Amino acid sequence: MKKFKSDDLKSLTKRLFLALGFSEEEAAIGCDHLIENNLIGANSHGIIRILQYASEVKEQKRLRLNVTPGILRQEGGVVLMNAGFCLGPVAAIKATETAIELARKHGIGSVTVKNIHHTGRVGAYTSLASSHDMVGFACVNIPTQRMMRVAPFGGREGRITTNPISFSCPRNKEYPFLVDMATSTVAEGKVRVARNRKEKLPNDWIIDKDGKSSDNPEDLYNGGALLPLGGYKQGHKGFALGLIVEILAGALSGNKVAQKNIDQDGGGFFILVLNIKRYLPLEEFKEEIEKLCSHVKDTPKLPGFEEIIIPGEIEYYTKIRNLREGIFLENKTWNEIIELSRKLGVRVEDVIHSEV
Amino acid sequence: MKKFKSDDLKSLTKRLFLALGFSEEEAAIGCDHLIENNLIGANSHGIIRILQYASEVKEQKRLRLNVTPGILRQEGGVVLMNAGFCLGPVAAIKATETAIELARKHGIGSVTVKNIHHTGRVGAYTSLASSHDMVGFACVNIPTQRMMRVAPFGGREGRITTNPISFSCPRNKEYPFLVDMATSTVAEGKVRVARNRKEKLPNDWIIDKDGKSSDNPEDLYNGGALLPLGGYKQGHKGFALGLIVEILAGALSGNKVAQKNIDQDGGGFFILVLNIKRYLPLEEFKEEIEKLCSHVKDTPKLPGFEEIIIPGEIEYYTKIRNLREGIFLENKTWNEIIELSRKLGVRVEDVIHSEV
Repeated sequence: MKKFKSDDLKSLTKRLFLALGFSEEEAAIGCDHLIENNLIGANSHGIIRILQYASEVKEQKRLRLNVTPGILRQEGGVVLMNAGFCLGPVAAIKATETAIELARKHGIGSVTVKNIHHTGRVGAYTSLASSHDMVGFACVNIPTQRMMRVAPFGGREGRITTNPISFSCPRNKEYPFLVDMATSTVAEGKVRVARNRKEKLPNDWIIDKDGKSSDNPEDLYNGGALLPLGGYKQGHKGFALGLIVEILAGALSGNKVAQKNIDQDGGGFFILVLNIKRYLPLEEFKEEIEKLCSHVKDTPKLPGFEEIIIPGEIEYYTKIRNLREGIFLENKTWNEIIELSRKLGVRVEDVIHSEV
Repeated sequence: MKKFKSDDLKSLTKRLFLALGFSEEEAAIGCDHLIENNLIGANSHGIIRILQYASEVKEQKRLRLNVTPGILRQEGGVVLMNAGFCLGPVAAIKATETAIELARKHGIGSVTVKNIHHTGRVGAYTSLASSHDMVGFACVNIPTQRMMRVAPFGGREGRITTNPISFSCPRNKEYPFLVDMATSTVAEGKVRVARNRKEKLPNDWIIDKDGKSSDNPEDLYNGGALLPLGGYKQGHKGFALGLIVEILAGALSGNKVAQKNIDQDGGGFFILVLNIKRYLPLEEFKEEIEKLCSHVKDTPKLPGFEEIIIPGEIEYYTKIRNLREGIFLENKTWNEIIELSRKLGVRVEDVIHSEV
């Protein structure tokens, strides 16, 4: 494990994006997105993704250079976009900014995007809405066979992806209320981490190819499946949420929903923005949210719990710590980044001045 | 147990509403809502509720007669209403129809309502949106102390209500895709049914007043709490959904969120409607939904499961059966309805021609 200053990692990431052929704007958005993810602790969506992007740029299929996402249709508070397989956050930020503009005009706006490359952390976009004093809700579907790892309630094969949803609104704090969650029991990345660390899984996360509960992460990748949120007993609710994501992000975007024999490279993205000021004065709204949060935090705890966590708190405190203490990277990840930099002719020593 | 023709029960319910002093329009909406709930199998929200309404009408506080819900504010795609404690479905239907009109005009619309009496089954309103070929999403909060039965993840006392969410969209079928679920592991009504039947609960539903898992329904009503969807392990996700409902239905409506020392009689309601035709041709949308549904239904089953259920199917098939076979009522409920009818001077024998 090594520790790095976030600004240094950001500079390195930007140079790598540029060396891969991305435009100045794409590189700036890309490195901001990835390093912010490391800062708030979403490491599976952090700098490590530059390795994936580098290999995908070669294919020129899933991810394309210098593409400007375009608006396909605009009527009232509704806009449809085609991301054209540009860098995911570039399209998702444009969609979010467009939805914010719609909400300024109409009080409410929704933007859907098709052919979107890996959007990264969906919470980044709803947080962008809340930083403009609006409510944001977003979700993503990916109709790609190998990603369809979540089994329907009562089923023993994956049919949809982990279909994340995010919701954010402003608080009277430096950080927003921020929900960002897979609609499966856990995100696939958590199983992957357990596999890398050779750890066992809790017994409600996955089933093996025969539909049996398994604590072995390998079983997920050998024909097994993730269970929907709610697991064996209440998984009909989690799977219903996953289907809602298919409908909003897959069908309304024109990107396609999960279905038989489909294998799309791109995903569908849906964002809804509500302009709080059209509903009530902003300060009144924020005060209500603080009252809700204190009411909840003030609950007597179950044994083993020190604190009731409000969604968004962990990300904020992790960021403060990482800004101060630096971002940890595993040796394997760092070595792969050095190797990529060497191939692309980016001199790591020019950017990374010191490990923290 | 007795069985009745749904039309007979509807006539009786309407006469009871009228005898209580409700207007013709209120009575018509009220009886339609309650009997439809019985038809689709949501018996806890069916004719039994007339007993609750009758006692609340006396108080003239929680539920008022002959009130017209009013629009407080309208800007672009956003409308705020005050239900003024009128019969819940009257306000919720007006809100839904208003949101449908907004979506016709702007492609998208949201209506929030404050001071709303018991809305009944939230799925009734999202289904109304989907019957107009639109997508509907709705939720309800109730900042009433005695109803705050859902404990935060890691907490051992209730802090919010079961905060239901519903989502519906049209299919290429006679019935819509329809999700209607509490954001707790189960709706409180299911615990109540188990209590009445003296049955034990599964061990992930409730905790007792000391925070211990309990299978005794009585413990919920003696200082215990319901767990959020996801239970002991993933309950942070279910509770996050419950908080989102507080924000949309409680804060954006101006009705108030769950908070310390609050004890409102009314609830907050939020409905969002998306006009599918502004996104893509309706037939294309419906075909996508059918592809999604067949893809999901076609999953190999886990042992003990005969079928993968798409949200909305159970309600539809239950309704067909109940239309044919009649609606079952427990003797206790029926006797209470007879007693209420007698008090109100409604002659049951004029309306109920025969048990089925």
